[in-house]
Amino acid sequence: MAYSTIALAVSDHVATITLNRPDQMNAFTFEMGRELIDAFDRTDADPEVRAVIVTGAGRAFCAGADLTTGAETFNAVAKAQERGELDETDPRWRDSGGMLNLRIWNSAKPVIAAINGPAVGIGATMILPMDVRIAAKGAKMAYPFAKRGIVWDGCASWFLPRVVGISTALDWGLTGRTFLSEEALDKGLVGELAEPEAVLEAAHTRARAFVDAVAPVSVSMMRTMAWRMLGADHPMAAHREESRAILRRGMSKDAEEGVMSFLEKRPPRFQGRVPGDYPAGWPYDAEPDY
Amino acid sequence: MAYSTIALAVSDHVATITLNRPDQMNAFTFEMGRELIDAFDRTDADPEVRAVIVTGAGRAFCAGADLTTGAETFNAVAKAQERGELDETDPRWRDSGGMLNLRIWNSAKPVIAAINGPAVGIGATMILPMDVRIAAKGAKMAYPFAKRGIVWDGCASWFLPRVVGISTALDWGLTGRTFLSEEALDKGLVGELAEPEAVLEAAHTRARAFVDAVAPVSVSMMRTMAWRMLGADHPMAAHREESRAILRRGMSKDAEEGVMSFLEKRPPRFQGRVPGDYPAGWPYDAEPDY
Amino acid sequence: MAYSTIALAVSDHVATITLNRPDQMNAFTFEMGRELIDAFDRTDADPEVRAVIVTGAGRAFCAGADLTTGAETFNAVAKAQERGELDETDPRWRDSGGMLNLRIWNSAKPVIAAINGPAVGIGATMILPMDVRIAAKGAKMAYPFAKRGIVWDGCASWFLPRVVGISTALDWGLTGRTFLSEEALDKGLVGELAEPEAVLEAAHTRARAFVDAVAPVSVSMMRTMAWRMLGADHPMAAHREESRAILRRGMSKDAEEGVMSFLEKRPPRFQGRVPGDYPAGWPYDAEPDY
Repeated sequence: MAYSTIALAVSDHVATITLNRPDQMNAFTFEMGRELIDAFDRTDADPEVRAVIVTGAGRAFCAGADLTTGAETFNAVAKAQERGELDETDPRWRDSGGMLNLRIWNSAKPVIAAINGPAVGIGATMILPMDVRIAAKGAKMAYPFAKRGIVWDGCASWFLPRVVGISTALDWGLTGRTFLSEEALDKGLVGELAEPEAVLEAAHTRARAFVDAVAPVSVSMMRTMAWRMLGADHPMAAHREESRAILRRGMSKDAEEGVMSFLEKRPPRFQGRVPGDYPAGWPYDAEPDY
Repeated sequence: MAYSTIALAVSDHVATITLNRPDQMNAFTFEMGRELIDAFDRTDADPEVRAVIVTGAGRAFCAGADLTTGAETFNAVAKAQERGELDETDPRWRDSGGMLNLRIWNSAKPVIAAINGPAVGIGATMILPMDVRIAAKGAKMAYPFAKRGIVWDGCASWFLPRVVGISTALDWGLTGRTFLSEEALDKGLVGELAEPEAVLEAAHTRARAFVDAVAPVSVSMMRTMAWRMLGADHPMAAHREESRAILRRGMSKDAEEGVMSFLEKRPPRFQGRVPGDYPAGWPYDAEPDY
Repeated sequence: MAYSTIALAVSDHVATITLNRPDQMNAFTFEMGRELIDAFDRTDADPEVRAVIVTGAGRAFCAGADLTTGAETFNAVAKAQERGELDETDPRWRDSGGMLNLRIWNSAKPVIAAINGPAVGIGATMILPMDVRIAAKGAKMAYPFAKRGIVWDGCASWFLPRVVGISTALDWGLTGRTFLSEEALDKGLVGELAEPEAVLEAAHTRARAFVDAVAPVSVSMMRTMAWRMLGADHPMAAHREESRAILRRGMSKDAEEGVMSFLEKRPPRFQGRVPGDYPAGWPYDAEPDY
């Protein structure tokens, strides 16, 4: 698959996915959504990739949905589907932002948002299932759905209250107001600010921490476990999953190397790769159907 | 229904509900609970109302349960019910604070707590399902249930850990200690402080942000979606609801107006009203029975 | 049961459990896990105990799993079980850290972590189901599982995102990095710092707040209610539990004393004890099986 709206490059165990419509401030299109999903399929499948960075080309991260179809922008959603096999009443119709964000949420590798500039609408929701968010100082951000007459997309109604708390989620969502990355840092939406030209470098620094000195299989499993358990109703669910996972990982060569490198005060050399070296049966639970 | 314990006024799309027993520091009675539920039924039903402010008359917000019946105060709960159709073993017996707070949680309009003075017990739990909380500087607050020999009410065992985190919820709940609104701001229980005489004005400023430039139907749906998804076990639940909601809202006149007003750099004029202009089938899931 | 790895002492209604392998920095062993569970059974059963403090002997709180078996450390988990009735495929095999933390989570008395020094691995997960965490200034903490080639234990995949938020949980978990108690305070993992020699005293001060002026039965029920509802999918679950609990507690002598002592402006003298004086039928829901 050759990409027309994004770029994908892998270097030194880190994949970089670049939203690549700089003349349109990387505005989101259905094609971009499909290409992003494909890119995460590739980074998942490539055992050389241990971390993924998502950033934007040019001065913006992602300005939101492409509005060039004007008044038909969001209605075009239905029309596009009507031209295909689904009409508006078809229960299989799905929000493309949600499909993308569920895919990111299920990434086998940790994901870092390098928010180099404005992040609005779907540009501000696609960062939510990522593990680390770094933003340019002064970058404008917004969840402007109520100002456009629509509603949450990208599973933001689930993610945003968990990332920043229900009070902040309601403030940003019900007013649709624009806020700066400084406020995003204060509220926990982003964990770090950098000068715009230094955001990508800061993201690479964070990516190294997911690559050096940690076992790729452990990182992948722990990422999945923490995100899944964020929705679980009882710690017993974690106990069941952890009991299986730690038993099998404890029998691995990586666990031997982890202990011995620590005792010998040297950097570990983990052999296990993702995919390929998960314990048998992982993941233990299937994802729910749409 | 003429109110004896509260007052309700609507002006410029904002409803103000005033707890109105100033000589008793607006102490909560069963009658006040019933009248508040009725008031939210009215604000939900009135398409002119787009935001609701709750405040207290006089110097207090709400001092908690009315203790004028002394030692019988909380036992009176059972006795009052025994005089009716329910005895203490009847499974239909329900906490009146919980009934109120579930009603507020299900408000179709966003709700702002203007905490003009002390907020204690049920006065501190009824603010939890509201969307914005503004408090007077120096206002005393407490969840004193353990000091009174009782337990959480008003669904606070569910709301408080989600609004301020489990650590703060346990601190305040298990000690029952009084804290100031400054600590409430630091812990995220309130989002803004103001001088006591300026709290209501600050609430109106926040209400304007829920009224001007946003679509009432979008605000109402987004409020409901975020609060509901706060309890959902998986982002797929959000994806299912959002996919239906954004498809239908994307076909609305409001969505056209939202995009066109943005492109034309002018304020939007949204036509959709609550109730009346929800998409067909909304809300998509029924509330659980008691 | 005579303890070999911990110590248990009760004084003035406060139990102190001391991890007691100071020459090994209180490194965790299976025996320590069993003894801790036994100690919590005792503090639950003793009506004189109203709060529990957990601390470490010597300069460490708990350095994590005992690594003296070297490369076999985590594999030893499976081997130890193979010598018994379970082999590695047995679905009954359970993580011992999770068994411990579920036990602490179900404590009938509030629990305070007095983190007098380094807390690493299971030493940093066993504090999560405790109600208050106080740490020594400059204490090193880490969730180093990814550096050892293993994964979350102790139900940390459920607890940590709820205590500090998903972003911080992923940061600490996926990098395995060491951080100081100052960062733990900033992120909400601990609520208070003290000089190392003053940590235990600070814990006793907090314990007094769970002992003086509050009803033991109320404290116990409120602790359980808040932790359980942290996982519940809807506030209706809280309403059901609270309605039963507050009705019955409202009929208790403690509720009379709570109101009367307040009205008479004197300290309350609560008679109800834990266990023994819970309302009939408490707890209302059974814990899930493994």
